[in-house]
Amino acid sequence: MALLALDLGGTKLAIALFSPDGEVKTKLTIALNGRTGKLVGEMIRHEILQLLDTAFVQAIGVAVPGIYTAMNGTVWAPNIPGWDEYPLLQEVESISGGVPVVIDSDRACYISGEIWQGNAKGCSDAIFLAVGTGIGAGIVSGNAIIRGAQDIAGAVGWMALHPPYKSKYDACGCFESQASGEGIRKVFIEKSIDHISAGQVHRLSTFDVFEKFDNNDPRAVDTIKDCIQYWGMAVANLVSIFNPQKIIFGGGVFGPARKFIPQIREEAAKWAQPISMKHVELTESSLGNDAGLFGAAYLAHKAIALKKMNDAL
Amino acid sequence: MALLALDLGGTKLAIALFSPDGEVKTKLTIALNGRTGKLVGEMIRHEILQLLDTAFVQAIGVAVPGIYTAMNGTVWAPNIPGWDEYPLLQEVESISGGVPVVIDSDRACYISGEIWQGNAKGCSDAIFLAVGTGIGAGIVSGNAIIRGAQDIAGAVGWMALHPPYKSKYDACGCFESQASGEGIRKVFIEKSIDHISAGQVHRLSTFDVFEKFDNNDPRAVDTIKDCIQYWGMAVANLVSIFNPQKIIFGGGVFGPARKFIPQIREEAAKWAQPISMKHVELTESSLGNDAGLFGAAYLAHKAIALKKMNDAL
Repeated sequence: MALLALDLGGTKLAIALFSPDGEVKTKLTIALNGRTGKLVGEMIRHEILQLLDTAFVQAIGVAVPGIYTAMNGTVWAPNIPGWDEYPLLQEVESISGGVPVVIDSDRACYISGEIWQGNAKGCSDAIFLAVGTGIGAGIVSGNAIIRGAQDIAGAVGWMALHPPYKSKYDACGCFESQASGEGIRKVFIEKSIDHISAGQVHRLSTFDVFEKFDNNDPRAVDTIKDCIQYWGMAVANLVSIFNPQKIIFGGGVFGPARKFIPQIREEAAKWAQPISMKHVELTESSLGNDAGLFGAAYLAHKAIALKKMNDAL
Repeated sequence: MALLALDLGGTKLAIALFSPDGEVKTKLTIALNGRTGKLVGEMIRHEILQLLDTAFVQAIGVAVPGIYTAMNGTVWAPNIPGWDEYPLLQEVESISGGVPVVIDSDRACYISGEIWQGNAKGCSDAIFLAVGTGIGAGIVSGNAIIRGAQDIAGAVGWMALHPPYKSKYDACGCFESQASGEGIRKVFIEKSIDHISAGQVHRLSTFDVFEKFDNNDPRAVDTIKDCIQYWGMAVANLVSIFNPQKIIFGGGVFGPARKFIPQIREEAAKWAQPISMKHVELTESSLGNDAGLFGAAYLAHKAIALKKMNDAL
């Protein structure tokens, strides 16, 4: 008996078989290799069929990089060309042979995975703050995932943190433009414009900025200090609004920014509702890159429980 | 058949009988007259007993000004001395003669009332932003009230909106210290310190600031402009985080600030996740001072439905 979990990203597909109690049995990652539209759907079905043949799969969970509209089973994935209202549920159900299929957004899966088997185990109120190229959050409050009216809740990268409004916030919001991976890179370049060549700018990665911070480059120190302030303010806002038990930091930036969590807490504590702040724990993801897979497996796990309940009625 | 609703404030108690479909049958308001602690509880029981005698009450709902801890039925109300873990549920149940009693915080009642009979009627995702002396929010997401791990979610007055941190935010948070009724008064006085006497400061009310704005007093214009920016940023953050259908402005300040809702929308639209912003409606409360009473009546209404369901099983 096994749970089949898939985590689709913009460039790769991760697939794993889990035992019902959350142990990873097998795992593989396959590059999309430039596939778009229906070819991505075909690839997903092909991989599922292969594993359905080799293991007794009880349910299938899929994490998708964008918005999943439960009402009609479609996916909007901005990084996969052709995936606008893509009928993924129907496609997977057409080959699942009656095995239940559940799909959700990667953000929802990250926090669900951490609640099932990670650093938010057993929490009723917890938030996964994903800081990578962009910034988003998976939020669970009172044991329910916060979805919103159009399934686009948790867009915390758009958080307003520093007036007045500047046009550089247009593309992705104030918080994200200052404190995402891409934001950190851009802010550092802005501060360094008279000190680095166009070629250096071209080659510079977010991780280079963290390395320069470690080497006491004053502009990198400045960039990361600003970042800690914004991360702290954003955390404070989530704490005051949700009164959560845990906030989990994940995504590529945490990663190297993991070591700043105590300073982020210090900044957040200045701003947040003091009782809520006292009760919240800030911590890193324990599942790392696998948070989405664990969340997808948990979707499958819950689908089985639901099916059993329905069968019993 | 009637629903009995009570809305306790820091200085008065409102009581009403509702028909099951949300019509107010009778309503009265009684001053607490300096009562504290157990005397407030006695007053509540006395009023309930009087109405239980005159109408066929099916359920009782109570809105309280603070935090209600459902786990043990107690209330923490900072404005009522002696109400720290006050056993209100037990006290009311002791005289209700088996009629179901439900209690919740005023914030939760405001938004519940608007969803039942007000400007958020039928919404699954809506927020009541209460701007009075302080600032708080009642938040419903996916048909559930956001409560948090210690029942203190929705403390949006603590929202971090303007770095760096200043010590004047210590007492009640950045957003509240800038844009609540008391905040508006203080910010205006700060801006006017060389232009008004100590006596004028002493007598100045929040409403005076709005009146001065209407008379083009430049410092009042400045104060209110800043306010609109902060209200807009706070609304943007709630929109990006919750993707709600409606945000309802209530409390004493909305009121006179009602006319600024279009400008608040304009400011929020600069900052917020653009799809969520397109879908949200910003509007004033249609229930005004009665939002808490309507919410309390809705608690009673839902308690009856629950009882019927349990009886049927």
